[in-house]
Amino acid sequence: MAQLLRIDASPRDARSHTRRLADVFIEAWLARHPADRVVRRDVGFHPPPPVDESWIEAAFAGPQERTPAMRAALALSDELVDELLASDVLLLGIPMYNFGIPAALKAWIDQVVRVGRTFAFEPDDPHQPYRPLTRGKRAFAIVATGDDGYEPGGPMGRMNQVEPYLRTVLPFIGIMDIDFVYVGNDEFGGDRLERAVNAAVARVRELAARAHRPRGPVEAEVEEAGT
Amino acid sequence: MAQLLRIDASPRDARSHTRRLADVFIEAWLARHPADRVVRRDVGFHPPPPVDESWIEAAFAGPQERTPAMRAALALSDELVDELLASDVLLLGIPMYNFGIPAALKAWIDQVVRVGRTFAFEPDDPHQPYRPLTRGKRAFAIVATGDDGYEPGGPMGRMNQVEPYLRTVLPFIGIMDIDFVYVGNDEFGGDRLERAVNAAVARVRELAARAHRPRGPVEAEVEEAGT
Repeated sequence: MAQLLRIDASPRDARSHTRRLADVFIEAWLARHPADRVVRRDVGFHPPPPVDESWIEAAFAGPQERTPAMRAALALSDELVDELLASDVLLLGIPMYNFGIPAALKAWIDQVVRVGRTFAFEPDDPHQPYRPLTRGKRAFAIVATGDDGYEPGGPMGRMNQVEPYLRTVLPFIGIMDIDFVYVGNDEFGGDRLERAVNAAVARVRELAARAHRPRGPVEAEVEEAGT
Repeated sequence: MAQLLRIDASPRDARSHTRRLADVFIEAWLARHPADRVVRRDVGFHPPPPVDESWIEAAFAGPQERTPAMRAALALSDELVDELLASDVLLLGIPMYNFGIPAALKAWIDQVVRVGRTFAFEPDDPHQPYRPLTRGKRAFAIVATGDDGYEPGGPMGRMNQVEPYLRTVLPFIGIMDIDFVYVGNDEFGGDRLERAVNAAVARVRELAARAHRPRGPVEAEVEEAGT
């Protein structure tokens, strides 16, 4: 049994393409892995707060040095990190806003990229002061765009700041394996949107049916020890 | 007289390098343009909310179709857009968080990138459905990073998701001319940080002393008409 963490970043409800496509993904995924558990974190409807000065001070203090106020400043972050660490698969539903991820998803990322929990920081190591601390996870990202052609190599590919960003920050905490599905044309509507949604539904189903769950940390460690 | 809009995105106060460097920039700028007006918008201390479904619905409705509730949903956005449109120079103080801009600054961007106000959307135009609506502005971005070497071409340059993002979204609304200053090593502290800050102070002073104010919209239009 694996745990799939679904993060919805859209503030829209019935009109959200990413929510609908994430439903499709989950349905296809559970058809194949019926014992898997799905956990939901809805940052679109409930955006986490941006990190503030007390958060930063608390996060960079050692766990033993933290006052009750510092622990309180990190309480939500701890909850979000625990949820991420307990999950094997991350499913992100992301409406592209102004070429990037929504502010609410960035707030979630800033809450879960935590020194000592999802990455290690050794300032005295001149070669590798930063090291990822998560293992055995993979991610799927469903990205909805107002226009179309944002996939890498597409006519708008160079404007896409969602995929390069996630391919930078997720590996930093150890999530290397990320698949993207795009659904375009939200702002154009009509047939153009309908065709885009239908194509995305097919791609999402195919991805959920084809993709393997990540190797768990135990298997990954055994393999590394054997190399 | 020009108006300079200073956006502070750091949630830190005395310990913020970007706030200190923005102070240096403003001082040097006003020494040269003593009649200029400085307006501050502190998204670090007062993060705007992420846009939500009612915001999106209201923004994409025509101004004449908006209900009082829709106008209320856009009230802060209108204020932030007015402030941006009334300014000639944008000074952004940005701590890089997890390789990107802070969530609070993304929330500000999502509030000011407004259809019909800072960009035009013509879905029936097959060649150029999107068009910037601001003119005659330039931007300066002061970016603080935990590590160093994030400037383009630097050893960490490919991890920098702040500059590519701003160079994508600001031109979309018409702000083409953007200068960046980096200050690194916040997470290492000591001499290493002190040298980085001193170098950044010198670069900021030099930039404020050298950079020209943008041509105003009137001059820009005259020139365009003459080409």
